[in-house]
Amino acid sequence: MATAIAHPNIALVKYWGKRDRRLNLPATSSLSLTLAPYETRTSVESDAEKDECWLNGELVEGHKAQRVFEHLDRLDPWRKPATVVSTTNFPIGAGLASSASGFAALTMAASAAFGQNRTDTALSILARQGSGSACRSIWGGWVEWPKGQHDDGLDSHGRPIAPQDHWDVAMVVAVLNKGPKAVSSTDGMNRTMETSPYYDGWVTSNEQDLLPAKKAILARDLEALGTIMERSALRMHASMLAATPPIRYWKSNSVWAMDAVENLRRQGIGAWWTMDAGPNVKILCEAKDAKAVVKRFSNLAEATEILLPGGPAQLLED
Amino acid sequence: MATAIAHPNIALVKYWGKRDRRLNLPATSSLSLTLAPYETRTSVESDAEKDECWLNGELVEGHKAQRVFEHLDRLDPWRKPATVVSTTNFPIGAGLASSASGFAALTMAASAAFGQNRTDTALSILARQGSGSACRSIWGGWVEWPKGQHDDGLDSHGRPIAPQDHWDVAMVVAVLNKGPKAVSSTDGMNRTMETSPYYDGWVTSNEQDLLPAKKAILARDLEALGTIMERSALRMHASMLAATPPIRYWKSNSVWAMDAVENLRRQGIGAWWTMDAGPNVKILCEAKDAKAVVKRFSNLAEATEILLPGGPAQLLED
Repeated sequence: MATAIAHPNIALVKYWGKRDRRLNLPATSSLSLTLAPYETRTSVESDAEKDECWLNGELVEGHKAQRVFEHLDRLDPWRKPATVVSTTNFPIGAGLASSASGFAALTMAASAAFGQNRTDTALSILARQGSGSACRSIWGGWVEWPKGQHDDGLDSHGRPIAPQDHWDVAMVVAVLNKGPKAVSSTDGMNRTMETSPYYDGWVTSNEQDLLPAKKAILARDLEALGTIMERSALRMHASMLAATPPIRYWKSNSVWAMDAVENLRRQGIGAWWTMDAGPNVKILCEAKDAKAVVKRFSNLAEATEILLPGGPAQLLED
Repeated sequence: MATAIAHPNIALVKYWGKRDRRLNLPATSSLSLTLAPYETRTSVESDAEKDECWLNGELVEGHKAQRVFEHLDRLDPWRKPATVVSTTNFPIGAGLASSASGFAALTMAASAAFGQNRTDTALSILARQGSGSACRSIWGGWVEWPKGQHDDGLDSHGRPIAPQDHWDVAMVVAVLNKGPKAVSSTDGMNRTMETSPYYDGWVTSNEQDLLPAKKAILARDLEALGTIMERSALRMHASMLAATPPIRYWKSNSVWAMDAVENLRRQGIGAWWTMDAGPNVKILCEAKDAKAVVKRFSNLAEATEILLPGGPAQLLED
């Protein structure tokens, strides 16, 4: 029995599309910030009577449970039945990166429960195969995920750029809609790859944003980073809007939020938005400005949360 | 002195981007519906003391006036000073195609005032040079505008597909914001062409929508036509969202309107939306369903209008 916690991460330079679906190898490199206090806590008991998975007190069944057990098989093909118990302190399946923290924590906990001793890089490669962006949640702070070149994906895993205390920023999450998303990230990615006439343009242009984004992080240049972040999110969503049938995660409040962020900037508050596969909006700002951003969103959002750079995934001692 | 009226047209398969900027030759073919009772009425007096242009009772000056006088020069390089008096019965500069009806009426009225006798095709070619989409407003009903192949643009003009009485449809305009647009169509097109990584994908994919749209019109298949129309609008806007800096004509109520249209369809009312270079939304439906569509939008929109297929531009007798 072992327990691990991991934080979700929000991509600033987005991951959308795969060069290998089975191994979750991305078509573009991406870059993220690991965020606390959101976290997933997962315990794995490796010698159970049968495979069982619990998430926030409810038994997980069907396809979702299958995905967890297959991930355990991946970690140890000769494993015995296992019980997985997982809890999150934030909404799941709403574009808040719950699968990233989930598969990072699962990989770390199960690996320990199975008596394995793996490097963070090895854990990241395995976590990626469970859910792509999970490979970034193995590390804290600012993390890049190069797309890699190799067919086996051994060169495509999270890699730390700067630690969580590098820069006092905040990510304000404006929860605009707690419901589950209409199209899963996986289905959305596949449909974009297969039907969007903008997919090639997405892959080429997004890759060019990685290096400038890294430079902006190292130079602590929020305007440069924020501009790249908004561009990457816009292009990701635009690539989906052009799919057949179109994929639109934006709701009217999402666009309201974009306008609100532009207004904040006009008022001198450095704030930039990003969005993932869901209607919620995340706003990057200096930590000192987080309360002003929250205030701006308090009327519209169902809830707001101030997230701060978080640490790496870690095993909890018994 | 001569007076002409022309109706605006709304593109179902969109025009966005040029293969020749001076001649307004489009990068893609487009297809539109000419719409009444919106109209522009323009009188040209060809033997005035000096060039003067009035629009809805106000003297037009600067760049906008220059554009009108240069168009008159195009029609007759040896012309005398002219007075242009134009009125519209709908908001201008708000993505409601006022420049289409404006330059169609201007071309027809000035041509007559200058004593010229031109075919509709010749008028369409000239109107196109004033404002691209104006070439479609020379005709009523369903009109295509092939991009053409020739450098001189003589093969790129409006061409009627079906007359106004071919099909009893309506276009409901939901005016969500009467203010002028933040970025003009011309500037928006140029920025998209120059900076959007999705521009090539836009040009290629939109062209493929023309033939199926024509077939849907001739077969009076509203679902097929509506699906193509939404796709073309989404892809046009997505190509702009990906530009640098991004161009976003969508406001929160634009997205609300998209959701509302999807809800109408779920309720069994065949309705599809399109949007141009402005936040307003236009909804295509069977004429018999127009009132139900208006009702759905009455709470949100500042104003709604039911437009019906309109006739060709025409010269008014004295």
